[in-house]
Amino acid sequence: MNMNICLMPGDGIGPEIVTQAVKVLEKVAKKFGHTVQTETALIGGAAIDAAGNPLPEATVAACKAADAVLLGAVGGPKWDTIDPAIRPEKGLLGIRKALGLFSNLRPAVLFPELAAASYLRPDIIGQGLDIMVVRELTGGAYFGEPRGETVVNGERAAFNTMIYSESEIERIVRVACEIARKRGKKLCSVDKANVLDVSRLWREVAIRTAAEYPDVALSHMYVDNAAMQLIRDPSQFDVIVTENLFGDILSDEASIITGSIGMLPSASMGSGGPALFEPIHGSAPDIAGQDIANPLATILSVSMMLRFAFGLEKEAAAIDAAVKAVLAKGYRTGDIYVGEGEKVGCSAMGALVLDAI
Amino acid sequence: MNMNICLMPGDGIGPEIVTQAVKVLEKVAKKFGHTVQTETALIGGAAIDAAGNPLPEATVAACKAADAVLLGAVGGPKWDTIDPAIRPEKGLLGIRKALGLFSNLRPAVLFPELAAASYLRPDIIGQGLDIMVVRELTGGAYFGEPRGETVVNGERAAFNTMIYSESEIERIVRVACEIARKRGKKLCSVDKANVLDVSRLWREVAIRTAAEYPDVALSHMYVDNAAMQLIRDPSQFDVIVTENLFGDILSDEASIITGSIGMLPSASMGSGGPALFEPIHGSAPDIAGQDIANPLATILSVSMMLRFAFGLEKEAAAIDAAVKAVLAKGYRTGDIYVGEGEKVGCSAMGALVLDAI
Ligand SMILES: CC(C)[C@H](C(=O)O)[C@@H](O)C(=O)O
Ligand SMILES: CC(C)[C@H](C(=O)O)[C@@H](O)C(=O)O
Repeated sequence: MNMNICLMPGDGIGPEIVTQAVKVLEKVAKKFGHTVQTETALIGGAAIDAAGNPLPEATVAACKAADAVLLGAVGGPKWDTIDPAIRPEKGLLGIRKALGLFSNLRPAVLFPELAAASYLRPDIIGQGLDIMVVRELTGGAYFGEPRGETVVNGERAAFNTMIYSESEIERIVRVACEIARKRGKKLCSVDKANVLDVSRLWREVAIRTAAEYPDVALSHMYVDNAAMQLIRDPSQFDVIVTENLFGDILSDEASIITGSIGMLPSASMGSGGPALFEPIHGSAPDIAGQDIANPLATILSVSMMLRFAFGLEKEAAAIDAAVKAVLAKGYRTGDIYVGEGEKVGCSAMGALVLDAI
Repeated sequence: MNMNICLMPGDGIGPEIVTQAVKVLEKVAKKFGHTVQTETALIGGAAIDAAGNPLPEATVAACKAADAVLLGAVGGPKWDTIDPAIRPEKGLLGIRKALGLFSNLRPAVLFPELAAASYLRPDIIGQGLDIMVVRELTGGAYFGEPRGETVVNGERAAFNTMIYSESEIERIVRVACEIARKRGKKLCSVDKANVLDVSRLWREVAIRTAAEYPDVALSHMYVDNAAMQLIRDPSQFDVIVTENLFGDILSDEASIITGSIGMLPSASMGSGGPALFEPIHGSAPDIAGQDIANPLATILSVSMMLRFAFGLEKEAAAIDAAVKAVLAKGYRTGDIYVGEGEKVGCSAMGALVLDAI
């Protein structure tokens, strides 16, 4: 198979971690008889600096022409005071919309080797943690219209619209049901239906859609309660499906409790076109350029890419196994180092995974 | 002093815990030479059952006529399938709006006696936890107009409006600054200004308002990051100020990590009229009527009432000290029992606090 990958290293540690991940991709491809072609495109702050625009036309075109997209991370304090219309984040939101990436899969997994790094009490973590957060990614308050500023009673007021249509809800719930079916068969839909109209429609459509998956047990939880339950008893969750803003908050919460946030990949998919894969963590500008970032989340994003974009299960498993082997040998980047094993930098960690493949 | 209190026991465990709290209030009042008059009003499911309306006119009138309001909790599965227009929660939202209670103070405190009950790793909890979440309570998506359902491209869509005016932001930031000034002098304003227009105005007005409090150090954090930081390093926070929906989520998260959620009171205040005090926890219908609920959060809500509504600092301190004494003696309700001390029920716990005053 030939794989056409668009790389968007982005800002901060983005370029370093993408470099390591590409090496891993190329090695796996070679080993299994595939070929890889990569093209690099600008996004975020890097694109603002080079082209005055966080998402140049050429980037959108390059992504659309690719089979899959690998993103590093975007943003940083350098662009914090820039005109909001061209902030780095606009690049990320723009490419999600341009590629129709409505479904964002964010696994929150505790790597047994890293159990000591989890932030929760050991007895809560118990036998581990494996939650898949399915976040709707192109709707809700992120994109809802109208939005902006107005004048109410002689003073300024600003507003956004949280809006979902039936079909937007249906398609993301369907994705979540399909995933739940292949896992623990439990789906928890998170909303705020006791307060929000948009959540009441969400719940109604979730019930209707999940009814087509009788093997999947659907439950509902209010978002405030979900924020508590993730801490009180995270192992009650299998798959969580929720709207864009709640998903932003809850997926970050779910991933930090594992203590392995530098390890967690994500996939953003649409219906048919190229999907986008990226680490869950941010651009970490404070450690950029020092060769100390953890490349494993990006390397595991390549594994997700092989599995979800190309259906290459064996190839993906080879990466997962290599990462596990390196962890088992005790190698750790600074973010997951808790006093034991050997601390290594970004490129050294990349090389270790390469060797293990 | 004579104190006119409107009691709204509400649903589930509400009546049990309010009963204990009122006994404590009466004892403290007597001890310090005050008088208490109480009136009881219906709210939530109890009001739906009795009057077909979660917030009868008479309840609003009784609250307005009182010096302060003590609420138990509202809601339960019994009313889950009821017409959304008259759900129990509407009573709570309605009384907040009717009394103009724009400022909701939710302390997340780790009781040293209960440190073992915290859900976080012991080394993260370290020397304790004392965060005050100041949540805006009458604005944002909870009340924003327009809201409802519409038809877009031939299908149903539902929507809410997240909206804030300058004066709404200013007054809540001012409350938070005043509180921070009396505590650690650090204020973290939480928003999603990298995505939402409403958050950009929030941040702008927060900066402008906090500038009048040069002794208070203002910082900003995105809501997704805040959800992580509360777990990664909660002791970095002193006072957090945020909008209604983010505050709903983050205050629940902050209170659960203490492990002491059955202990945490809250205050909701407006500008001038009667304030409302209630435990942070919900109506816990599963344990209602069994005399096993923890009345301490409601008892501590009375302490907050004495302090904030009546300026009776000594009286409030007497309650706080009694609660501490009872905990120090090892008495625990089921929710905070972690294997040591003596397990007691709701009325027994109330009696113990009474004795300690
Ligand atoms: C950078 C930001 C716009 C983005 C989001 O809010 O979606 C990020 O937090 C994420 O979760 O990918
Ligand atoms: C019951 C519900 C309407 C309420 C809210 O969302 O404000 C509750 O969660 C709270 O935090 O007091």
